[in-house]
Amino acid sequence: MNDVLNRLATVLESRKGADPESSYVAKLYAKGLDAILKKVGEEATETVMAAKDGMPNKLIHEVADLWFHTLVLLAHQGLEPRQVLDELDRRFGLSGLEEKANRVG
Amino acid sequence: MNDVLNRLATVLESRKGADPESSYVAKLYAKGLDAILKKVGEEATETVMAAKDGMPNKLIHEVADLWFHTLVLLAHQGLEPRQVLDELDRRFGLSGLEEKANRVG
Amino acid sequence: MNDVLNRLATVLESRKGADPESSYVAKLYAKGLDAILKKVGEEATETVMAAKDGMPNKLIHEVADLWFHTLVLLAHQGLEPRQVLDELDRRFGLSGLEEKANRVG
Amino acid sequence: MNDVLNRLATVLESRKGADPESSYVAKLYAKGLDAILKKVGEEATETVMAAKDGMPNKLIHEVADLWFHTLVLLAHQGLEPRQVLDELDRRFGLSGLEEKANRVG
Repeated sequence: MNDVLNRLATVLESRKGADPESSYVAKLYAKGLDAILKKVGEEATETVMAAKDGMPNKLIHEVADLWFHTLVLLAHQGLEPRQVLDELDRRFGLSGLEEKANRVG
Repeated sequence: MNDVLNRLATVLESRKGADPESSYVAKLYAKGLDAILKKVGEEATETVMAAKDGMPNKLIHEVADLWFHTLVLLAHQGLEPRQVLDELDRRFGLSGLEEKANRVG
Repeated sequence: MNDVLNRLATVLESRKGADPESSYVAKLYAKGLDAILKKVGEEATETVMAAKDGMPNKLIHEVADLWFHTLVLLAHQGLEPRQVLDELDRRFGLSGLEEKANRVG
Repeated sequence: MNDVLNRLATVLESRKGADPESSYVAKLYAKGLDAILKKVGEEATETVMAAKDGMPNKLIHEVADLWFHTLVLLAHQGLEPRQVLDELDRRFGLSGLEEKANRVG
């Protein structure tokens, strides 16, 4: 299922050359890092609100928005979701969740 | 690669019966929703700071923390990462990124 | 100097009956609590970014935005800035900052 | 009433020379900017949660925490609450709330 993240990263990469008028993501790139980070903060807040509302569908929608904008951030910084997943794998793949938890802080 | 999210979700599910003293995640579950949401907000802020610092490794680390705690949130609410990925797939799989972008709002 | 907060609270109160089309604040009230909270989260993120940029004027601007939207939130909830200031006074007025710090947690 | 902010700023200034072990604020200064910003983000999230809970006393408490940590941030950056209040005054003192609203963006 998770090829979604890879495929999405590929699409996000391809948007780097697009006309800012033609694409939401290209417009975000053109606005720059602060605009992307503002969206990350905004979607985190909306995730919190959706969870407090106890609305599962809304929560899934907002987490999708949050992950999406972190993927835009990664692409903008020349990074890939694989690197984040590798980090998660490294944390809990070696010695289980407690180990990861310790590193998560 | 992305089986990481599935495997992590499985581990997070298994922590629901664990002793809060034995596991970071079990402790978060025991503290309840607000404690989990507080971590989501905190990690979003740290993601923003890492990006402003222009430190790729730190950014990957913080995005991993942010994704991890959204996974804990999903598990706590009886939801799965698959549902978020399906939502992302639905948005851009059907008609391309512009369509998704419109829905992302 | 601080009558600014009182005066601002009075203005915000007066906007409760205003046409949403005529005033930014009346429009926020009409949109409801989530729209106001979204702005609080957004301005907090922008405060963090301005501080990381090390730009004093921008930081003052963003903190003003953040305080302003918390004042809108208080007004929307039927609360007054005086109650927040009283809380701050109570915390450090009795026994100094350490005492307050303890309560701030 | 608002001398609270002035008095608090004076106390925060005086903590700059204090032993980090003796004072919550001195410890925050010693940890540095990121630790202070993390608290700002955290208290903004808690403000959002308290508002969603519809608990007035909790909301006042969290807004006080948020304002307090923005005051610590200002002090750390060599700025004063007066400058934020002057900015708010400038926005709505001259030509009313609509004018301010436009500048608030």
